[in-house]
Amino acid sequence: MKITAISNPKVQYWLTLKKPDVRKEGRLFLLEGEKLIKEAHALNLIETLIYYETLPTALAQVKEIYQVDYKVISKLSSLTSAPNLIAVCKIPDYQVKYPEVILALDGVQDPGNGGSIMRSALGFGVKHLLLSETSFDPYNDKFIRATMGAFFKVNVERLNLVSKLIELKKAGYKIITTSALGNTQIKTAIVKEKLVIVLGAEGQGISSEINALSDFEINIKINPELESLNVSAAAAILLYEIMKIRGVSYD
Amino acid sequence: MKITAISNPKVQYWLTLKKPDVRKEGRLFLLEGEKLIKEAHALNLIETLIYYETLPTALAQVKEIYQVDYKVISKLSSLTSAPNLIAVCKIPDYQVKYPEVILALDGVQDPGNGGSIMRSALGFGVKHLLLSETSFDPYNDKFIRATMGAFFKVNVERLNLVSKLIELKKAGYKIITTSALGNTQIKTAIVKEKLVIVLGAEGQGISSEINALSDFEINIKINPELESLNVSAAAAILLYEIMKIRGVSYD
Repeated sequence: MKITAISNPKVQYWLTLKKPDVRKEGRLFLLEGEKLIKEAHALNLIETLIYYETLPTALAQVKEIYQVDYKVISKLSSLTSAPNLIAVCKIPDYQVKYPEVILALDGVQDPGNGGSIMRSALGFGVKHLLLSETSFDPYNDKFIRATMGAFFKVNVERLNLVSKLIELKKAGYKIITTSALGNTQIKTAIVKEKLVIVLGAEGQGISSEINALSDFEINIKINPELESLNVSAAAAILLYEIMKIRGVSYD
Repeated sequence: MKITAISNPKVQYWLTLKKPDVRKEGRLFLLEGEKLIKEAHALNLIETLIYYETLPTALAQVKEIYQVDYKVISKLSSLTSAPNLIAVCKIPDYQVKYPEVILALDGVQDPGNGGSIMRSALGFGVKHLLLSETSFDPYNDKFIRATMGAFFKVNVERLNLVSKLIELKKAGYKIITTSALGNTQIKTAIVKEKLVIVLGAEGQGISSEINALSDFEINIKINPELESLNVSAAAAILLYEIMKIRGVSYD
């Protein structure tokens, strides 16, 4: 039952998963790359496996498997050189206990920056990422690629960030924001509190509603010749510094 | 003398400046954006100014000025929505005294990361960037855009990095590299030495020739679940930490 036509209804359905609204509605997305697909399989998230040439034995138990020809896999893939495997993958439900430190992004739109930020978060032990609805879609292929394998190791939720921050404050979290006007030094904030570190888009910064929730406005002092750091650079510095102060160490 | 045809020899010549080899040979590149063009003008770097609708009075003294129609400016521009101004700009000759701290990139190919790194460098007061010949072209429009205005505030040279590092070592500079195998803590290295901080491409890391020149191999310890930080995240952390230890402060 090799599928050879792009007009095949299955293929047409899979292609709809390139649209953010369809992904959100169906809680499904397309995942490329054998390593990530195996990670998703271990988490029981693979719904359908689509392959072109070879089916890895480790994935042979997936319940829906289709072989397709090169034309079809190329059309499904977002890469210039199509992979052997693509999966229809479930968007995880995170019914987790929130960790002590959470990272949140408000209005960050570039998925490349997003991927770099998720890597820095994992690198310094922060495993939960909240995204405002004005931020990039975390099931976008560019983001997934930019995470370079961090993707399934950090929980990610895209939601009404203001409501979530209010809820987390009630649960005892302190909100840290960055601001060129702030005068809190990183150190004074942050030893034992439960924290949400919120970063905004360069240029606009953090929305006023979220600013009003901030407990600590941190200013990473920079040369006045520069307007602002790239958001992923600011994230890296904050995560590194805060987690070091909290004694999280990978020595 | 409004130019309306893409076939016009001037336009054809300007278009050749989209090619890295032509830029390098002629030491000229295309620059977009009024703010950057004004900065270049102040540095006496503008050779030709090309405008579509209005000529800013501050730029009226440029010796070669051409008006073109929308079709022509669109063709010259790398933006989806063409700007009013484009300039043919000279590549600066840096006959500078090297500063105390220099940043070098070995084989970093992504111009977006490059732009973020140049911003972090300027942000923490490091104003000279060396690029290996295997790194991105700093006169590439994506890079210039990603620097968000830091472009003319940081010197950038693309050259044989190994030879330059040997020369700088002779002049008393210490070479700092990062490595997952290194065990120098950032602090122990770096108080008063003249420094070159060298960062390599993710994945490959730094070339073995450059590794052999390293005086301090610094390891930014990360969660073993992550393979490596994004190079611009690593750059941000190193620049922030090293310049703080050296007492460079923007308070």
